[in-house]
Amino acid sequence: MKIAIQGALGSFHHIASQQFYGDGHEYICCDTFAGVFEALASRGADVGVVAIENSLCGSITEVYDLLLRHNYPIVGEVAEHIHQNLITFPGAKLGDITRVYSHPVALAQCAEFLESKLPRVEIIEHHDTAGAVEYIKDHDEHGSAAIASTLAARMHGMNVLCPSIQDERSNFTRFLCIQPNGSLPPDADKASLVLTTSHQPGALYKALGVFADLDCNLTKLESRPIRGKVWHYQFYIDVEVTKLTLAEAIKQLESQGCIVKNLGMYRASYKDFDD
Amino acid sequence: MKIAIQGALGSFHHIASQQFYGDGHEYICCDTFAGVFEALASRGADVGVVAIENSLCGSITEVYDLLLRHNYPIVGEVAEHIHQNLITFPGAKLGDITRVYSHPVALAQCAEFLESKLPRVEIIEHHDTAGAVEYIKDHDEHGSAAIASTLAARMHGMNVLCPSIQDERSNFTRFLCIQPNGSLPPDADKASLVLTTSHQPGALYKALGVFADLDCNLTKLESRPIRGKVWHYQFYIDVEVTKLTLAEAIKQLESQGCIVKNLGMYRASYKDFDD
Repeated sequence: MKIAIQGALGSFHHIASQQFYGDGHEYICCDTFAGVFEALASRGADVGVVAIENSLCGSITEVYDLLLRHNYPIVGEVAEHIHQNLITFPGAKLGDITRVYSHPVALAQCAEFLESKLPRVEIIEHHDTAGAVEYIKDHDEHGSAAIASTLAARMHGMNVLCPSIQDERSNFTRFLCIQPNGSLPPDADKASLVLTTSHQPGALYKALGVFADLDCNLTKLESRPIRGKVWHYQFYIDVEVTKLTLAEAIKQLESQGCIVKNLGMYRASYKDFDD
Repeated sequence: MKIAIQGALGSFHHIASQQFYGDGHEYICCDTFAGVFEALASRGADVGVVAIENSLCGSITEVYDLLLRHNYPIVGEVAEHIHQNLITFPGAKLGDITRVYSHPVALAQCAEFLESKLPRVEIIEHHDTAGAVEYIKDHDEHGSAAIASTLAARMHGMNVLCPSIQDERSNFTRFLCIQPNGSLPPDADKASLVLTTSHQPGALYKALGVFADLDCNLTKLESRPIRGKVWHYQFYIDVEVTKLTLAEAIKQLESQGCIVKNLGMYRASYKDFDD
């Protein structure tokens, strides 16, 4: 199978894809999230794996907008505990390091580590964590380190000098698997919906009442502006639901005047705090 | 009064500040939103004006996080219709332009204009719209244009060659005025709250029911992750409310087990579609 991901091999997108789809697949590495959706549109890839939210930074709203625009069903989700690692040439020591390369988000996640352990190094931003490992390897920069996954270290024959250096232990990213013409997974127990309510006072409250009355737990609610309608919003909702109950919920929401778009049903991933 | 803003004089923050506070004030121009809050913390500024959301791009979540961290009350809001303009040296014509400078967001807002009217120009990103006008003026770049406000053009003695060139007419930004030790404006009719519900199914629905039962209209609901609590969220809520009703709502929410933080009450600005 051809899997489109954002970032290079060894990135956290690659790790999440392996966790969901297993080994033995071909990867299409895209520079941007839009590139992943384009790879699906051109049939260059069979499935795409995209990050949708991080437990520290929040939602990646660009991906929400792309999901709505392209309308490819979500068929799965993966939650990954993000461990950042200081990666060097084998044999290098902390005292040898004069430069650290990584993606700006990874650098920010390790700011306290860098300040306390490597206060005088030059910090250099790279567009990709795994790409930063490849860069120092290819440029033979023995005095440099990269911050990336252990997979990236292994793939490039480099050494994890300091493991799990992120400042906050509880750093998780949730990824979605999307598949044009994907079918409903038989064990699906969660749905992602986009809800447009009428612009009446209490409309959102009334809509959420449908889920409460049907005993469906909302796990996420995200608002996004509607283009061309100033200060009007759509709501992205994740809800624990069976196929039958979802059909009933959508029927009730539509009878209230809501416009509901089903982005897909999939098996929930409840991974957190364990690896 | 000393007003801290993000960006240079002539920026949309400057325009929003003038609209709210009138003329005759001193401006502290900060590179970042965090800088505005630091200027307030150090008493370098009396009030701060920060963008909180755009009708096309959505919320500026960094500002939500800063509001919660610093706890300075919101005392006002301003909605500005964002008009972008192509600004050149007086006498320059479209055919003379080989480069266009502006902030990446402003460039993106004018992408269709640039593609259709200036398909061969070099696009150069600048950290500030008004700063881009100053840059081409200072560097005597007669073949360059900047995209910025008419105020920026006027301040630097430059010409608005093409007015209102943004692709979408309905492009509004909402700004908040924050003031350490600010007092409740007498005409306040809207509040911004941060709500942390219990992690029970239906908790958000129950909380929104308090506002519905009190006939208070929610104008905004934004979720943000809680640091250190994976997949738990806080909700930023804007609600049309009187001082007395707000006190009642907070009492009821707290009796449900919600933690409520009042970010401030202020007079709502309902400006849209008119200038």
